[in-house]
This record gives sequence, C-alpha cells and structure tokens, in this order.
Amino acid sequence: MTELEHWVLTFVCPDRPGIVHAISGAVVEAGGNITESQQFTSEDTGRFFMRLQIEAAITRDEFAKKLEHLAKNYKMDWKLDFVGRPMRTLVLVSKAGHCLNDLLFRQKAGQLPIEIPAVMGNHSDLAEMASFFSVPFETHSIKTPGDKLDFESRLRDFIAQEQIELIVLARYMQILSPEFCKEFEGRIINIHHSFLPGFKGANPYAQAHARGVKLIGATAHFVTEDLDEGPIIEQNVTRVEHSDSVGQLVAIGQDAESKTLTQAVRWFAEHRVLLDGSRTIIFR
Amino acid sequence: MTELEHWVLTFVCPDRPGIVHAISGAVVEAGGNITESQQFTSEDTGRFFMRLQIEAAITRDEFAKKLEHLAKNYKMDWKLDFVGRPMRTLVLVSKAGHCLNDLLFRQKAGQLPIEIPAVMGNHSDLAEMASFFSVPFETHSIKTPGDKLDFESRLRDFIAQEQIELIVLARYMQILSPEFCKEFEGRIINIHHSFLPGFKGANPYAQAHARGVKLIGATAHFVTEDLDEGPIIEQNVTRVEHSDSVGQLVAIGQDAESKTLTQAVRWFAEHRVLLDGSRTIIFR
Amino acid sequence: MTELEHWVLTFVCPDRPGIVHAISGAVVEAGGNITESQQFTSEDTGRFFMRLQIEAAITRDEFAKKLEHLAKNYKMDWKLDFVGRPMRTLVLVSKAGHCLNDLLFRQKAGQLPIEIPAVMGNHSDLAEMASFFSVPFETHSIKTPGDKLDFESRLRDFIAQEQIELIVLARYMQILSPEFCKEFEGRIINIHHSFLPGFKGANPYAQAHARGVKLIGATAHFVTEDLDEGPIIEQNVTRVEHSDSVGQLVAIGQDAESKTLTQAVRWFAEHRVLLDGSRTIIFR
Amino acid sequence: MTELEHWVLTFVCPDRPGIVHAISGAVVEAGGNITESQQFTSEDTGRFFMRLQIEAAITRDEFAKKLEHLAKNYKMDWKLDFVGRPMRTLVLVSKAGHCLNDLLFRQKAGQLPIEIPAVMGNHSDLAEMASFFSVPFETHSIKTPGDKLDFESRLRDFIAQEQIELIVLARYMQILSPEFCKEFEGRIINIHHSFLPGFKGANPYAQAHARGVKLIGATAHFVTEDLDEGPIIEQNVTRVEHSDSVGQLVAIGQDAESKTLTQAVRWFAEHRVLLDGSRTIIFR
Repeated sequence: MTELEHWVLTFVCPDRPGIVHAISGAVVEAGGNITESQQFTSEDTGRFFMRLQIEAAITRDEFAKKLEHLAKNYKMDWKLDFVGRPMRTLVLVSKAGHCLNDLLFRQKAGQLPIEIPAVMGNHSDLAEMASFFSVPFETHSIKTPGDKLDFESRLRDFIAQEQIELIVLARYMQILSPEFCKEFEGRIINIHHSFLPGFKGANPYAQAHARGVKLIGATAHFVTEDLDEGPIIEQNVTRVEHSDSVGQLVAIGQDAESKTLTQAVRWFAEHRVLLDGSRTIIFR
Repeated sequence: MTELEHWVLTFVCPDRPGIVHAISGAVVEAGGNITESQQFTSEDTGRFFMRLQIEAAITRDEFAKKLEHLAKNYKMDWKLDFVGRPMRTLVLVSKAGHCLNDLLFRQKAGQLPIEIPAVMGNHSDLAEMASFFSVPFETHSIKTPGDKLDFESRLRDFIAQEQIELIVLARYMQILSPEFCKEFEGRIINIHHSFLPGFKGANPYAQAHARGVKLIGATAHFVTEDLDEGPIIEQNVTRVEHSDSVGQLVAIGQDAESKTLTQAVRWFAEHRVLLDGSRTIIFR
Repeated sequence: MTELEHWVLTFVCPDRPGIVHAISGAVVEAGGNITESQQFTSEDTGRFFMRLQIEAAITRDEFAKKLEHLAKNYKMDWKLDFVGRPMRTLVLVSKAGHCLNDLLFRQKAGQLPIEIPAVMGNHSDLAEMASFFSVPFETHSIKTPGDKLDFESRLRDFIAQEQIELIVLARYMQILSPEFCKEFEGRIINIHHSFLPGFKGANPYAQAHARGVKLIGATAHFVTEDLDEGPIIEQNVTRVEHSDSVGQLVAIGQDAESKTLTQAVRWFAEHRVLLDGSRTIIFR
Repeated sequence: MTELEHWVLTFVCPDRPGIVHAISGAVVEAGGNITESQQFTSEDTGRFFMRLQIEAAITRDEFAKKLEHLAKNYKMDWKLDFVGRPMRTLVLVSKAGHCLNDLLFRQKAGQLPIEIPAVMGNHSDLAEMASFFSVPFETHSIKTPGDKLDFESRLRDFIAQEQIELIVLARYMQILSPEFCKEFEGRIINIHHSFLPGFKGANPYAQAHARGVKLIGATAHFVTEDLDEGPIIEQNVTRVEHSDSVGQLVAIGQDAESKTLTQAVRWFAEHRVLLDGSRTIIFR
C-alpha cells in the first residue's frame, strides 16, 4: 500500500462549465482530499486557471494517468508536483549581495522550497558568500559579445545537466540575449530596482531622485525579450524623504528588492504563479 | 425559462473527503458554472469552510432543494444568496461622524452592497448627515438603565420589522446589554479604535500615547458579551510620531477606523466572513 | 500689550553658515520661542530651506520688519503666517466626488486648515454635495476652446476677488491652459490617479490593468505646463490582485486618491511644502 | 590647522526661550555650519530635545569646552560624537539567526554604523554565522541561576574592557536580571516578537493565532526591569491570513523582527533616539 502523498496540481484550460466537478471527481476516485484550492477565470483571455493541493494514497503515475484523460477532454495544460519539493534553481549575480544573501539565508532556514546547485556571477565578489552557504560559485567574466555567448552556452549545459527549473537574476547586471530569454521564457525571474513601469532602464534610483518621487519600489518579473517589459510577479514600495540622496535611495531600496525577489521565487517554487498573456495569476 | 442568476453559496461542515466533488456535482446538475471558489480546512476545529459564486439558470428554490439533500448528508450549515443583493443594515452612532460618512458615501457610490433603512444615535449630532444621504435618523437619548432597555426594545422591533441582517456600531459609544449581544451574535460589527488586543477599554488613544507606541490601529470585530473580545474581522494601522498629541492621534486614527469598518462591512455583506470559534475566516 | 501669537515662518536662501543663528536671534529679540523647527540643505541646488513655528508677543508687522533686514542680508525668500489660519482654497471638480467629499468632510471636521469660498465644476453632478456642506457651487460647462477661455477668465476674477491662495483639482478632468498653469505655478495641486511617472495620460487604471501591476497608486503634484510632470508632493499605493477588473481598480484606487490629495492640501495649507527646482521639500 | 569635522550633538534640557539661539551661537563661534537639525518640546514633561549635525573646523575638545558653559546655563544633558563613528555593540543571541544575520550583513555592507567586538549566545547554534562575518562568538550555557550570574559578570567585564555602548538582544531568549537591566538602562535594546502591548510574555505568535489577529508585529524597545514594558523605539506589522498556522506566523514574523530591530539599532547608533520618561523621541 502506498503512503499518503501531498500533491500540488496546477492547470490552465479554456473556461467552460463542469471543470471543477470533473477534477474533483478525479480526486475522489483517487481517494484523495482537496486541502487547498484556488481558481480564476480570466475575462481578458477566457481561460480558466486552477491550483489544488491534494492528499491521496496513490502514486504520482497513477494519478497522472487519471488526469491525462481529463486533460485531453478539457484541453488542459497541467503540472503535478509534490508539495514542498525543492525546485532546482540557478542564481545569477554581479556584485550586489543583498538579494543573494536573502535567498541563501531563507533557503537554509527552510523558508524557501528551492535547492541551488550553483550561483554564477560575472564578478567574483560574492564567491565567499556562496561558499559560506556551501553553494558552488562560478565566475564568468563578460567583457565581449563572445564572452556572453560562451556564458550562455555554459548556462544551457548546466541547466540541462542539473535539471534546472528556475533561473533567478539576483541583481545580475548583464543583459541576456533575446535567444536565451526566448528559450527559457517563463522560467527566468529578474528583480528590477524600480516600481515598473516607472524608471525602466539604467540607474532607476538616480531617475527616481531626479523626479522627486515619494515612494521607491522594486519589481520582480519574468524576463522576456523586451527588456523590463515581462509579466510582473510582485512589487513593493518604500517611503523616502526629500533628504535622501541617490546613495541612500540605493540602500533603502535594497530591502524592497530582496523581499520582492524572494517572495516571487517562493511563489514560483510553490507553483503559485501562472501566466495569462502578459499578466500573472498569483494564487497566494 | 429562467434567466441566468448569479449566486453566492457559503457553507461550513465537518471536514471529510468528497465535499468539493459533491457540491460541484450539484452545480453541474443545475447547469451552473462556478465563477469564484474559496475553501479552508481549520486544523483547530476540523471544520471545512467554503464560499462559491455560481452562475446558473434555475431558481433559488430549485437550487436550494438540491442543496438540502447534500447539506443533510454532509452536516452543512449553509447560506444561499444573490451576488450583490444589498444587505439590510442598521447603523448605530454617537457623535463622531467619520465612520458613518464613509459608510453612507460608499453605499451611495455603489461600492458597498448594503441598504440602510435607518441610522440611530444616542445623540442627534449626525441627524443632518443621515438626512443629506436621505436616510431616516432616530435619536434615542440614553441616560438611565431604563433608557437602554427601551432602546434595545425599539431595536428588536425595528430589526424584526425591517428584516435587518447586520447591525453596525459606527463609533457607537454605549455598551449593548449582554442579552442583546447574545441574541444577535455574529450579526453585530463594532469598530474599536485600537489595535486589539492592545488598549482595550476606554480612551485607547490616550493609552497609546502614554505607552509611546509607534503605530496606532483600528479593529473591526463581532460584538460578543465579552467587551472587546469578539472575533476580529479586520485591522489596520497607521504610523505616528513622538510629536503627535492625543488629539492628533484621534484625528490620525479616524482614517484607519473608517477604512477598517467599511472593509469589514463590505466583506460581511458579500458573505466573505465565516466564524471558526473565536476566529474569523475571510474569503477575500 | 499684544497677545501671544503663534506664527509659522518659511524661507529659502542660498546656504551659508550662520543662518540659523541669525534667524533664532530675531526670534529671541522678539521675545519669542521656537516651538517647531525643520531645515534642509539641497545638495542639488545649494539652497537652504527652513520652516519654523514661533510663539511671541509682538505683532506680525513688528516681526516682519525685523525679518526684512535679515532677508535682504541672506537673500531669503520668506513667508510669515499665523499657525492654523485657514488657507483660501478653490476646488475644481468634474463628476467623481470621492476627493471632494474627503476635502469637505475633513474641512468641516476641523482637520484641514482651509476655507473654501467655492467649488466649480464643468459638470453639475457635485452641486448637491457642495450644498450639503454649505459651499457655493458654480457649473461651467466646457465644450469649446472658447468655453475654456471664458472659464479661466472667470477663475482669474474669482481668485483675485476672493484672495484665493490655493487651487485644488479634485479629479477635475479638463486640462488647464499653459498660460493659466504658468500664471498660478506653485499654487495649483492636482491628483493624478496613478503612481507617476508610471501611467501618465488618460485611463491610468486601464493601463495598470493591462500591464498587470501588483500595486496601484495616486500622486498629488503641482500643476505645470508639462502635463503630469509637475513636482510631486505625495504618493500612496494600494495592493491589487490579478482578479481585480479595471472597474475594481477604479474603486480601489479612490481611497489612495482622496487620502493623497487631502494630505498634500493639508501640508500646503500648513506651509510644509517648499519647491526645490522640480522636487518638493516636505517638512512634515 | 584642524580639518573639517562632522559632529552630531544631542541634548535635553528644561524648555525655555533662547535655547536654539544660544546653541546656534556656539556653532557660529566655532565657525561651524548646521547641516541637520531637529527639535521637540515635550508637553508631557516640559523638556526640550534637540539633535544637530554640525560641520566645523575645530577639535572636539574645543567645541566641548564651549558647550560646557551653555550646558550649565541651560541645565543641558548633552552628548557630542562624530557623525558615522561606529558604535561599539555587543549582540546576545539564542538559536534563531534571522536578526543576527540582518545585523551582521548590513554592518558589513556599510549600512549600519556599529562595530561588533563579539556575539554571545546561550547556545552555540549561531557560532558559524558569526565566524563567517569574522566576529568572535562566545557560548555561555545558562541552566542554573548561578550560570546567569556568571554570564552577567562576564558581560560586565566585557562591556568595561571593550567599551561597549550598546547591547542588542537579537532574539536572546533569556531574561536578564533586574540589577543588570537597571545598571545598563537606556543601553539595552530588545526585539519582542509581537506588536506590544499586545501579546506580552511567552509564545506571542501562538497567542496571536488564538486571538485571530489580522496583522502580526514586532517591537524594538529598551529593556527595563519591567519585562516587555520598556520604552518602544520602533514597531512594524505584517498582514496575515486565517490560513496561516502558528509556524507560518513565526516565519512571516521574522522579517518584521529583523527589520524592526535593525532600524532601532541604526537610529540608536546615529544618536536619533532620546528618552522622554517612558516614551522615546525619534529624530529620523
């Protein structure tokens, strides 16, 4: 007899009556119990999104077989995973360590269901931090277009070998090639140090200071070919004063950045982020 | 042929497998579609809570009949209402008008699904405000225990005659009798001008000033016989400074109070508030 | 013998040593006491900003005479007013009433040191609301460029006659002419229903929905000839969900709008807002 | 010739006219310039509080001499320090590392003007973390009243030897003796994992869960003989849901705890925290 398993099921399909009944029927047949359930019908795209957590005493394969029939019928795009299984995550960095520190600290503290086979940087500044958390670090200096191609080639190999599911840009200050962005669309999360769509591009804190805004922010978003235009996952803001210099805005903003990125990574790793065109559905 | 109706169904029952399938089956049989769905299993009490919005083309009675069988089977305590039907609400006030103004303004603006057959006060200060919003106002001066009994007797009559479903204490500064609280338990919402459980009792802003807190708050809660101890529905806080006097705290706190009370009333009117012992489930 | 007066003094001048000593010397000479004091030196413009509250037993004219000498010496641009004197304020509106309601309610409740000789609108929808608060209302329909010229001419006359110090655009949906903006620069406050500089221009909530942001905001700013580009006074944001429609964003955003506008008006009326180029100094 | 120094001067004295003029006179005499200035008169205690940042080209001793005369005259209690001088700080911990990690990371990143000669714990769990940041760690197991006496004796020696100015309890789960609290009053900062005065004592998150609050918080306060009753320095809250278990509240609360404690330590180290009876003045 199989043990009780705890699964998370997410799916997207065209909206129509009967979906919830059909899926809950499959759960009942599997002798399962729905412990968490969220759904959303997008009026923009007519699609139905659902996330379920299910306890049941059958194997993943048995349950997947039941779902396949349903999925065909309802044209579902679905994923089935174990609740709490650590998602295999690659982190890219440059010099600033606050986002990396937050990710590593929380991962180690058991608050973030990811595992990190490596951190890679275009500078070596954060090698020591990774080492403290016992995570391998690779430095890939990028000075020429050729360097970038080589690095992306290394990334592709590593992603394949290590079965990487998520790539996190934790204040990685290089731009990935459009081909790479396209290839891993929906699997790369970036933290932008502004409240998008305000202050796209370089030096957002200098822009924010010049404009005299009263709140600064951070935006975690999927990376697409269009720089700073990918679907937004999470945003936070912090109040600032007229007396804060650009340097102080940078320091103040770091909290919002690391908090926002870590939250986005957590939701993604828990299968709480679904894509609806250029928008995200967040099943918190 | 009946038109398409939009219903909201809430229920509570002991947790066990198959509930979602059973209820969604009833919806499918009714030719309906689930447009919103939230559920929660309380580990404290072992109870299962659900809120559904359903579109279907049968009458309320037909659907209720289908549910009765299910409800018996699963020991459900359930409610079925039309989405957006204004809940019949009685508001009690004293002298401060900020909460009443917020309720009346939003009700009129179509942002709050309630209808208010009357506002009653132990002072007449807010009669003019009610009149501006075309709501009848009754003044019931309370100076003796007898006055209070008389007023509660008038309240009982009015509640029965006008089919009042919700009683809102919008900074009503009198204490209702334990009998009255008991009789209408789960149907009276009060706004307390502190972040409960801090600063229970009288003059919470003076207490907050003396203690030197850095945030002041407001708490909307159900009224029970135990003063300031009823289940909490919503809370908000606002930052204050050392330089704020008690008088300024009072002024600053009014925003949190009216915002918090209105939110609690909205959620209640939309059947988003369920009781789990001394805690509330909020299906936002 | 003159009574004890409570003054607020604000000034701007080129930064140099000795300013605070000089100004506090004038206060001592006047037999006064500084009850509140804030200062800021702008590294961007090299200017020194100060706001003082002073209790003293001499007349405004006597104190002004003392200041004139100092002001010349230090090249100060200064203002001297009584603490709490209501600022004469004209409010322009269109159809949406939430900002006007908040301003009028708080003004009446004694929480906003302004007096409002009139509200003017290009629609008559809010006439009744103004009337409830006993404020004259004028409707000036604007359908042609000529209408706009006529209205601005009426505004100029009214501002002159009624000694209007502040013009508040409380969701006034017409664009004032560049000449008018220029003429009253630093005296017109607008509320924009987005978190500027994101979503400039029309329909910011529709833009926000399309972009899938997770927070929506409001910005109170001075009006300049460059639409949506004037110095920002205050900003607030509110969290939204993927399930919120454009219509819900509009409703949710109204709280941030009225709160932000009222705060900006309060600070301006209390002489807490100073201009430093395209940025504002806020002495809270 | 002496270099330009940047000082921070804080003082408290009975309120009376002329203080600002007198102190700014001393600054002018020293050839200095006031770059930051904040003041507050407490209506509760009749005391005047001021914090100044001053640039001048004389030595600390020369300036201190000028101040002594003034201080006597005005009965000032004053402190003069260099802006940005790292405050010597001892951190006490038990097992939870989130507050320590935040303090050490920010100290290293140059965002927190403290230096930490040692971390001491009643458990050794965080020794490795301290070591990563190159900070000595001492474990002092406390199982008997005698152990506590021994530890406090070690603390006294260390504080004297190392000229410790600030003791931070970064989730240190032991209670210091009343004598020790008394001896170092105004120099020990604790983080309490609740929004005081709600949920004093042990297991505040379990208390918060049982009470069903909608926001949980953290409070940084000075330690006094009365447990959880010392003057509050900073507070923050975070929204929680009915579905959050006690364990999740603990995890969610950690962000508020570390953020709140680090902020309080930063303000203290920058001489921005002054005591006014049981309340704090925070010159942000």
